[in-house]
Amino acid sequence: MFSPLIEDLIRALRCLPGVGPKSAQRMAMYLLEKDRDAAGLLASSLQQAVEKVGRCSRCRTLTEQEICALCNNMRRDHSLLCVVETPADVLAIEQAGNYHGLYFVLHGHLSPIDGVGPADIGLDVLGERLGEKQSNETGAEEPMIRELIIATNPTVEGEATAQFIAERARARGVAVSRIAHGVPIGGELEYIDGGTLAHAFNSRTVL
Amino acid sequence: MFSPLIEDLIRALRCLPGVGPKSAQRMAMYLLEKDRDAAGLLASSLQQAVEKVGRCSRCRTLTEQEICALCNNMRRDHSLLCVVETPADVLAIEQAGNYHGLYFVLHGHLSPIDGVGPADIGLDVLGERLGEKQSNETGAEEPMIRELIIATNPTVEGEATAQFIAERARARGVAVSRIAHGVPIGGELEYIDGGTLAHAFNSRTVL
Repeated sequence: MFSPLIEDLIRALRCLPGVGPKSAQRMAMYLLEKDRDAAGLLASSLQQAVEKVGRCSRCRTLTEQEICALCNNMRRDHSLLCVVETPADVLAIEQAGNYHGLYFVLHGHLSPIDGVGPADIGLDVLGERLGEKQSNETGAEEPMIRELIIATNPTVEGEATAQFIAERARARGVAVSRIAHGVPIGGELEYIDGGTLAHAFNSRTVL
Repeated sequence: MFSPLIEDLIRALRCLPGVGPKSAQRMAMYLLEKDRDAAGLLASSLQQAVEKVGRCSRCRTLTEQEICALCNNMRRDHSLLCVVETPADVLAIEQAGNYHGLYFVLHGHLSPIDGVGPADIGLDVLGERLGEKQSNETGAEEPMIRELIIATNPTVEGEATAQFIAERARARGVAVSRIAHGVPIGGELEYIDGGTLAHAFNSRTVL
């Protein structure tokens, strides 16, 4: 119904998550009718990001730098490493604001059924990190990473990935922990699903 | 929190209608993590559309052609002209499927308070269209446009624009009509607002 270039634009906008045919049409009309500057800016931002954004060589998060700002920040605790599935998880933890160590981003989880093995989620890179040593005051060598905190999602694949990583870390003499799962703070028991409640009972702590 | 290029991309995505900070972040992560091809395609579609899409010189709808496919279609009734506010309105009427005339797109409505006058919504171009003459069988001149159908939105500004256009068209001897407003087909009276119901009573037709 629209001219070919407009149809192309509507089709391209539909690749965005959560955007259906109606929203895509509305977006295309808005950009072409009301805000061509914004459309041009979006085009160049996309182009720039696609060309230049890669992965941090230390933690694998998305960045256009060789080493990301977090890994380069000397005021953070470089002996703590938190393993997460996605860069968005890093943001969520940073916004909570009480963790000051470093991160390691898997970009997924182990999923043999989809052909995702350890190398696909960077466990070879993680292995090298865990193997890094430093000398302590007495001159003895100890691992650079004092504690590995696993914060993969509490799904079947996330749990399997956590177990797999934990075994490897323990074999290298690095302490491993998993973030707590249970009833969210401020959540009401009445509205919590059975799986979470069961986990909360099994993982109860002594008062 | 993210690297500068990613922050730029998230900010640029927020210019899309209906996209807030969380959705923009989700879109940026999705494009960079899962579908860089789609991101590149979106960038080039935007670039192309911004550069090339202009307005049809006959009906002012958005198109990259000099004259749009609808105006160029000789199988449509060129003696009927429907005036709408936006290109999306053209699509809505085309999807309904029972109108086979041409369109004229205002790209807005008269709004003196925002400084939008007749020339801003193309009423000079519409005036020329209404002034076009052709010879009929008897050799007498008659207007090319037999009927002007006004389909601006039933808002205060849309009604004012409709009245303004109707007066100009009548002055040129062109018949003018306004699409009907009332209770939507399939709508339930119980859920129709008072303004629409009052209009439906005032515009009742003889059975």
